[in-house]
Amino acid sequence: MHTPESYIAPPYRTIGESIVRELGKLISQPGMISMAGGYPGAELFDRDGLREASNAALRDTPVACLQYGPTEGLAPLRESIAQALVERGTACAPDDVLVTSGSQQGFDLLVRTLLQPGDAAVVERPTYTGPLRVLNVAGVRTLSVGVDAHGLVVDELEALLRAAARGELPRPRLLYVVPTFANPSGATMTLERRLKLLALAAEHGLVVVEDDPYGQLRFAGEPVPHLAALVDRVPDSRPWVVHLGSFSKVIAPGLRVAYLVGPAPIRRACLIAKQLDDLSNPGWTQMTVHRYLAAGRLRRHLPTIVAAYRERAQAMREAIDEHLAGRMEVNVPDGGMFMWGRLTGAAGARELLARAIDEKVTFVPGDIYFADSPDVHTLRLSFCTMGPAQIREGVARIGRALDAPAGG
Amino acid sequence: MHTPESYIAPPYRTIGESIVRELGKLISQPGMISMAGGYPGAELFDRDGLREASNAALRDTPVACLQYGPTEGLAPLRESIAQALVERGTACAPDDVLVTSGSQQGFDLLVRTLLQPGDAAVVERPTYTGPLRVLNVAGVRTLSVGVDAHGLVVDELEALLRAAARGELPRPRLLYVVPTFANPSGATMTLERRLKLLALAAEHGLVVVEDDPYGQLRFAGEPVPHLAALVDRVPDSRPWVVHLGSFSKVIAPGLRVAYLVGPAPIRRACLIAKQLDDLSNPGWTQMTVHRYLAAGRLRRHLPTIVAAYRERAQAMREAIDEHLAGRMEVNVPDGGMFMWGRLTGAAGARELLARAIDEKVTFVPGDIYFADSPDVHTLRLSFCTMGPAQIREGVARIGRALDAPAGG
Repeated sequence: MHTPESYIAPPYRTIGESIVRELGKLISQPGMISMAGGYPGAELFDRDGLREASNAALRDTPVACLQYGPTEGLAPLRESIAQALVERGTACAPDDVLVTSGSQQGFDLLVRTLLQPGDAAVVERPTYTGPLRVLNVAGVRTLSVGVDAHGLVVDELEALLRAAARGELPRPRLLYVVPTFANPSGATMTLERRLKLLALAAEHGLVVVEDDPYGQLRFAGEPVPHLAALVDRVPDSRPWVVHLGSFSKVIAPGLRVAYLVGPAPIRRACLIAKQLDDLSNPGWTQMTVHRYLAAGRLRRHLPTIVAAYRERAQAMREAIDEHLAGRMEVNVPDGGMFMWGRLTGAAGARELLARAIDEKVTFVPGDIYFADSPDVHTLRLSFCTMGPAQIREGVARIGRALDAPAGG
Repeated sequence: MHTPESYIAPPYRTIGESIVRELGKLISQPGMISMAGGYPGAELFDRDGLREASNAALRDTPVACLQYGPTEGLAPLRESIAQALVERGTACAPDDVLVTSGSQQGFDLLVRTLLQPGDAAVVERPTYTGPLRVLNVAGVRTLSVGVDAHGLVVDELEALLRAAARGELPRPRLLYVVPTFANPSGATMTLERRLKLLALAAEHGLVVVEDDPYGQLRFAGEPVPHLAALVDRVPDSRPWVVHLGSFSKVIAPGLRVAYLVGPAPIRRACLIAKQLDDLSNPGWTQMTVHRYLAAGRLRRHLPTIVAAYRERAQAMREAIDEHLAGRMEVNVPDGGMFMWGRLTGAAGARELLARAIDEKVTFVPGDIYFADSPDVHTLRLSFCTMGPAQIREGVARIGRALDAPAGG
C-alpha cells in the first residue's frame, strides 16, 4: 500500500522548522523582549519613500510591474544595482546581475547547480543557518573553518584545503562566507585575509560565495572592499567569486529583492535554475526598488538606520558591561545587527534560554550556527529591533536569568 | 585544473532557455503580431484597483508588507484564498494554503520533495513546458497520456498504470494535469473523467497535481468542479490531490502570487522546501492581492477580462475559418487563452513558423509540448494579447505563410 508520505524525500520529512522562526513565535507574547530574530527594525522602514516609489513604478511602467518579465530581472533594476555596486567600489555591469528572491534564493540556486549529494562545502564556524540547512538538505558534506575577531581564519582554511588536496578530507567545491559583520559572529575579515582567501580560491578551485547583506550597515571603523572588488588584485580569482547582495536589511526584507553577481557560466546556470523555480521576481517589487534607488532615497535614508543601530549596539554593549560583566564575553561589531556572546560559567545557552523566557527575554542559542563542534556556551543577540531602553531592560533580564539557580 | 564550469550539474549546462521566451524576444520587432506568448492581455490589468489595494495594504499593514513573514504566506491572504476556493465549490481552510511564487514554484516544490532522479511521472500529451522542464532537469522519467477534446484520456492513463503495476513500465508517482482549458490543448476534462482519474489515483498511489490557472476564464459552457472539489465523492482520493491555483491570469502575473492546496504531509514538505528556497513571497504583493480580493475587485473586474477573451477567441475562430479552412484543424476551447491547431498539409509547424516570421506573425510550434512522440504538425495560438482586428490580420498572415512555397 502506497502513501503520499512514503514519497517525501527523507530530508523534507525529518527537518524541523528553523529554531529562529520557532523563537519568532514567542515575540508575540505580551511583554516579551526578543533579541532572537534576524529582523531589521520595522520602525525604520521608509514607508513614505516606498509608497512613492511603488506608485511611480506603477504609473510610469505598469506593464513592467504587472506582466511576466525576464528571469534575470528587469533591466532598470539591474542597472541600478550595478551602479550602486560600482559606487561602493565593486566593478559590475547590468548584465552581471541576476535578481533573486532574497539572498536565500541566490544561495539555493548555487547549491542546486554546483553541488551534488556527497560533494563537500565549507562554512564559517559559526555560520548563518539558512545556507547550512540548504547544504544539509542537499546532502552536501559540510566542513567548517573557525572565525575570530578578524573574521574567517584563512590559515585554517588553507590547512583544510591542503589536507583535502592530499586526500585526507573531501575536497570542498564551495565556501559560504559573510565577510563583513557576519551572522552570527559580527566579525569582519581584514583586507589581508580577503586577499589570501582569493588566492586560495584560485589555487584550489573553490567557489567563494560572498554574502553581503550587512555591509552598508557600518557604524564604526573603515570600510573593507568586497571580495568581489578584489578579484583584479589576485590572479585567476575572478571566475571563482560570486557576490550575493540584498536590500532586505537596508530597505525592507518583505520586498524579497536581492541579487547574485558572478562569472557568466555560474550566473547562467543559476538563471536556468531560477526560471524553473519561479520564472522571475515580481515586477512591481523590482521596479519599486529601482525607483527608490533612482530617487536617491536609500542614500538619504541609510544614515538614519545606521545611526539607530549605532545607538542600539552601544546601549547593548553598555548594558552587557553593567549586567553581565565577567559572565559573558561579547564581540564588539563595527556594524550589522548582531552581538555574539559566550557564557563563561558552567551553564550552556539553552539552559539560560529556558530561564530567560521566564524572565520575558529571548535570544538564539549559538549551537545552531555550527556545522560541527558546536560551542554550547555561545548565543546571538540582535540589537536592531528595539530602542536603547528596551535593550537595557532585555540585557538586565538576561542578567537575572543568569542569577537564577540552575533548574529553577 | 578545476574550472567553475566543471562544477555545474549537467542539466544546467545543456538546457537552453525556453523557446517560448526566445520567441518572446521577437515580439519587440516592429509590426510583429505575436500569438506565441502565454501572457495575459496587459491592457486588461486593473491598474487602478491594484494601486488602491497596494496603497491600502501599506497604509494599514506596513509591517506585514515590509518585514519578514511566515513561509506559508500571510494569514489574511490565506483566508482570502480559502474563501475564494469555497465560493467556487472547493472545500478549503486557510491552514490548507501554501502561498507560492507562481504555480511554477508550487510544482517545483512538489518535484523537489516527492520525486528522486529515476522516479517516473506522467504528463498530458501535449503538456505545458514549464513542468516538463522541471521534470527533465530533476532526472525524472516522464511518461505521457494523450489528450482529446474532453481532456486527458483517462482510459489511456488506466492502461498505463495497469502496465506499470505489471512491471512493464516504471510506476509513476505523480501526474501533472491542467484539467480546465489546458495549456496548450485548450481542452477541459469531463466530470466523468475527473471522477475516474481520482479513483485511479487512490488505487495506484498517484499524486495528482491539478494546475488551474485558467479555470476562471470561462467564456462558454458550464463550469466543471475542480478535482480538489471531488475528493469527497471518491473514496481514499483526498490524500492524493494537490491543487495549484494562481492569480497570474486573472489579476497579473507580475505579482507572482499563487497557491498550493493539498494534504498536510505534502504541504508541510513543500513548506520546508520553500523556506530553504526563498523564505517567503514578498509581503507587499501578498497583502495587495488580499486587499484586492477583499474589496471585491476581482469579482467586479473578471467579467471584463472574460468578455474580452470571448470576443478574441471568436475573432480567431472566424479568421481561421476564413483563412485556414481545410489547412488547419483547431480546437474550440470554452475558456482560457489558447487555441491548439494541427496543420493538415505536408509542412510541419516549424517550417511554417520560419515563413510566418517573414510575414510578421509568430506562434509556438507544438512539438515542444510533447514529452515524447511529438506531433510536428501542431501549433499553439494565443488569442489574449490583442484585439479582434489584429487577431484577424495575424491569422491572415499565417494563411499567407501557408501559401508561400516551401523553402521560399
